[in-house]
Amino acid sequence: MSQCVGEAGPVSGKLIGVGTGPGDPELITIKAARAITQADVVAFFAKRGNASNARAIAADHFRPGQIEEALDYPVTTEIHRHDSDYKTQIAAFYSEAALRLAVHLDAGRTVAVLSEGDPLFYGSYMHLHVRLAPQYPTEVIAGITAMSGSWSQAGLPLVQGDDILTILPGTLDQADLVRRLQETDGAVIMKLGRNLPKVRAALCEAGRLDNAVYVERGTMANGHVIRLSDKPDDSAPYFSLILVAGWSTRP
Amino acid sequence: MSQCVGEAGPVSGKLIGVGTGPGDPELITIKAARAITQADVVAFFAKRGNASNARAIAADHFRPGQIEEALDYPVTTEIHRHDSDYKTQIAAFYSEAALRLAVHLDAGRTVAVLSEGDPLFYGSYMHLHVRLAPQYPTEVIAGITAMSGSWSQAGLPLVQGDDILTILPGTLDQADLVRRLQETDGAVIMKLGRNLPKVRAALCEAGRLDNAVYVERGTMANGHVIRLSDKPDDSAPYFSLILVAGWSTRP
Repeated sequence: MSQCVGEAGPVSGKLIGVGTGPGDPELITIKAARAITQADVVAFFAKRGNASNARAIAADHFRPGQIEEALDYPVTTEIHRHDSDYKTQIAAFYSEAALRLAVHLDAGRTVAVLSEGDPLFYGSYMHLHVRLAPQYPTEVIAGITAMSGSWSQAGLPLVQGDDILTILPGTLDQADLVRRLQETDGAVIMKLGRNLPKVRAALCEAGRLDNAVYVERGTMANGHVIRLSDKPDDSAPYFSLILVAGWSTRP
Repeated sequence: MSQCVGEAGPVSGKLIGVGTGPGDPELITIKAARAITQADVVAFFAKRGNASNARAIAADHFRPGQIEEALDYPVTTEIHRHDSDYKTQIAAFYSEAALRLAVHLDAGRTVAVLSEGDPLFYGSYMHLHVRLAPQYPTEVIAGITAMSGSWSQAGLPLVQGDDILTILPGTLDQADLVRRLQETDGAVIMKLGRNLPKVRAALCEAGRLDNAVYVERGTMANGHVIRLSDKPDDSAPYFSLILVAGWSTRP
């Protein structure tokens, strides 16, 4: 506790949620790159036994001598995410991760938490944010989302003017998907995986299959784009999504 | 026509749609900054008589000697956007702008078109893209959207897990807004302006007013964030939006 200011107690460090963007290392913002380089501690999530995607994207901006905190998820997809054991384990994991970072913040260190895509848009960083932001100075640096990277790679004008855009998880039941696809202009469907056959059927029933584009690993080196109706199989890895353009002929 | 390749004719230049992000000049990607610096021609939209916001955001990356193409909108909000005169004028404007850029592309010049936020997400660039991308090599570089910049500035975790996010224009009628707000987890409402009183009433009727956050000029120097229920007036400039978080207590 060497950093003290009179009677006000130690000066705490700053928490920074840093969006790394969707995969292409150049799709990180100048602000995010600088924050990573200047941080005392860089933290990142990873699946146990796997390298962190966020760390790989941001690796160019690390500085020698930085403290790294790898936050390894304790559970895998083997436990269903609505199972109470899952919820208990994952809550304990986020709380422990927050405590690990709090030690650095209490010691006056700036902690950058890497987040693939955008930190506050379906990101794990949110779980640390709600635990730490009430107690420490906090900044969030936006990142390019996977959907933005994907429609850019596809060159697909998505929404314009007064269009409504709906972002849907593929986990919804088919009837709900159909109804929501019929009532929106543009749509993005995430969480495909085993849901792809159902999503495909819903798009067909809603009359939107012809406009649906499938993007796998958008902006990543091995990414690709295909019209969903041309995709011959129903396999869809985690980093995939479907885009349905709302925009058609306008001035 | 000095750049010729055998009998294949002149080598055309490349069109690049470049997202500049929402306002903070540091919220531009490394890829976008590089593309702007390397381009032969930099084009940008502006309201007649006004400086271009996109040009101001990206000015640090301009290179001396670049050709600049200012694309000044011919019409203002004085003509209603559903008026046929408006549609005719704006269509002619986009077609003329595309022709101006085509001259550079035909001469083998790389043309970067700046777009505030993300080029294919409610951006004017889309009108050039649909006119030029079929004929010229084209790349789109994603940008941070205004909504992403806004929820980051607000420090507001927006959507998580299986949440549905709906992006709505404030131009919808009140009953439609209410229904859609009741059926979504998170929401972003854009195009406020004179629609703000109606949007506020719809949020109240949908029981979502307490979670609504108003962001004006997100990530810009003079930006600010306020709970909508604390906002004392109904004035809302063009660069404003409302965020409704879907995410609440999760593990």
